Amino acid sequence: MSNLKYAIIGVGGIGGYYGGRLAYAGEAVYFLFHNDYEYVKANGLKVDSVAPDGGFNIKVNVCKSAETMPECDVVLVCLKTTNNGLLKEILPKITHKGSLVVLIQNGLNMEQQLKQEFPQLNIGGGLAFICSSKVGPGHICHTDYGALTLGVLHGDDESLLKQFANDLSKTGVETIISDNLNYARWKKLVWNIPYNGMTVVLNATTAQLMQQKNTRQLMYNLMLEVIEAANACGEDLKKEFADQMMIYTDQMNPYSPSMKLDFDGHRPLEIEAIYSNPIESASRVGYDMSKTQELEQQLHFIQEMVIDKK
Amino acid sequence: MSNLKYAIIGVGGIGGYYGGRLAYAGEAVYFLFHNDYEYVKANGLKVDSVAPDGGFNIKVNVCKSAETMPECDVVLVCLKTTNNGLLKEILPKITHKGSLVVLIQNGLNMEQQLKQEFPQLNIGGGLAFICSSKVGPGHICHTDYGALTLGVLHGDDESLLKQFANDLSKTGVETIISDNLNYARWKKLVWNIPYNGMTVVLNATTAQLMQQKNTRQLMYNLMLEVIEAANACGEDLKKEFADQMMIYTDQMNPYSPSMKLDFDGHRPLEIEAIYSNPIESASRVGYDMSKTQELEQQLHFIQEMVIDKK
Repeated sequence: MSNLKYAIIGVGGIGGYYGGRLAYAGEAVYFLFHNDYEYVKANGLKVDSVAPDGGFNIKVNVCKSAETMPECDVVLVCLKTTNNGLLKEILPKITHKGSLVVLIQNGLNMEQQLKQEFPQLNIGGGLAFICSSKVGPGHICHTDYGALTLGVLHGDDESLLKQFANDLSKTGVETIISDNLNYARWKKLVWNIPYNGMTVVLNATTAQLMQQKNTRQLMYNLMLEVIEAANACGEDLKKEFADQMMIYTDQMNPYSPSMKLDFDGHRPLEIEAIYSNPIESASRVGYDMSKTQELEQQLHFIQEMVIDKK
Repeated sequence: MSNLKYAIIGVGGIGGYYGGRLAYAGEAVYFLFHNDYEYVKANGLKVDSVAPDGGFNIKVNVCKSAETMPECDVVLVCLKTTNNGLLKEILPKITHKGSLVVLIQNGLNMEQQLKQEFPQLNIGGGLAFICSSKVGPGHICHTDYGALTLGVLHGDDESLLKQFANDLSKTGVETIISDNLNYARWKKLVWNIPYNGMTVVLNATTAQLMQQKNTRQLMYNLMLEVIEAANACGEDLKKEFADQMMIYTDQMNPYSPSMKLDFDGHRPLEIEAIYSNPIESASRVGYDMSKTQELEQQLHFIQEMVIDKK
């Protein structure tokens, strides 16, 4: 045990799983609950898992508001990026100078945005390669994969991130520390940009998009555009990574990405983090992500004219 | 009267209206009917119209097959482009050397394609600026506008087209003869490419696309892309035409373009004529219509994975 105090903000498939693993291993973990507070207080946190232990059901430190949480050393933010506005209120109450805040989210530039508001904190990001979802109050179901790639902003202190990674890896979770968070984020966007949005716009599964030859080509073209944008932004991504992602997607089971699940659940889409921020970053260095932007524009239409009107 | 023999292939909103006007004026017009043959033979062709006369209901020459039609001087093809494959069988039976075939359709390059199969015919095109639809067997309802822009392929004889335009204008229809058919077709595509496809992909009206700020920008960007493609292909279209089309669309009533009506009716979409052909023409001169192609790829998905499976 590292004697670190952990806070989990956003207890869904991601926060519930990684936070639950830490708590189950005996770390000091404080979970911020909203609707599920009473239920988890009474029944504990239940995690079903494909990991060898099959999961667990444990009592955890449940907190109803940021005011009732201690100052934590490491804060795992597992909210949808559309709720990151809440952090302005929460973080001052649960951090000390030098605390590490890790945004385990999809998208780009959320860490840079947070750093502007909280220059005294160390800001990191996490990319979860996991299938895990909340299936009921305080009930998480982890069905596949599990690795977590981690990194801090350039210039921020990495020591808490290393301790966190060490704690988490001891629970059986594969953790990878990247020395280039933006590179890791762009790499994940190569998949997320084509599939998250297009499954929403065309109301399709990833398998259907791969099956029809024109959308298959479109997915590939979008991947290439993301790779070119990443390279324009100074990362070094090879075109062959798109070919790998095509094979990877062909081998997946038919799958609804998180944005499709949000769409089906009439929830806000993470358009800014996954689309607008990369488009803006690329645009700043003179690269026009025109295919991605067309998709972004269609998603804004769906958000405003379809989801918001339901 | 010109003493020309007219054939009407495709008796929907367009063919029924223009062909009906010619017949009502006393021209020799032969209509090819399929399902509606018996009904129109018994009840005549009925046209309700916003024109001053209010329309008419007249006996017309109804033909059940190309075999029973005379050789005609002017053939008006008012089929969906997706049915142009039928012309290979029909035209040899109803034309003589030098007959004029006019494709009153949306899209690009259909005339060039037809010319390859029928070099002995004069091939022209027509662009109808009209709101007219078939509302029942042999029953056409013309609700707005009505002008028809006409032109022949470069090098083909224009004299029959002029006689036809003269006959039609005497019935009260505004006719414009263009000396550049491709220019006229590209110009119409500036509107058709953005709105036909996007109303299908986003299941929206033109008004909704104009109301939401991101799709409004997308419509404008698509217009500019079509204009650039047209110019790359040697036409001379000004960027300001996109601004005019935006104003024009803002002033329209909420409207479902023909492709949206086809989608709603589970009919084949005119993807090749309206999208693939312009993309290919532009590509041949080195211009990449990437935004248009993304839309085309989405439409292929909808055609194969949604419409064809209904």
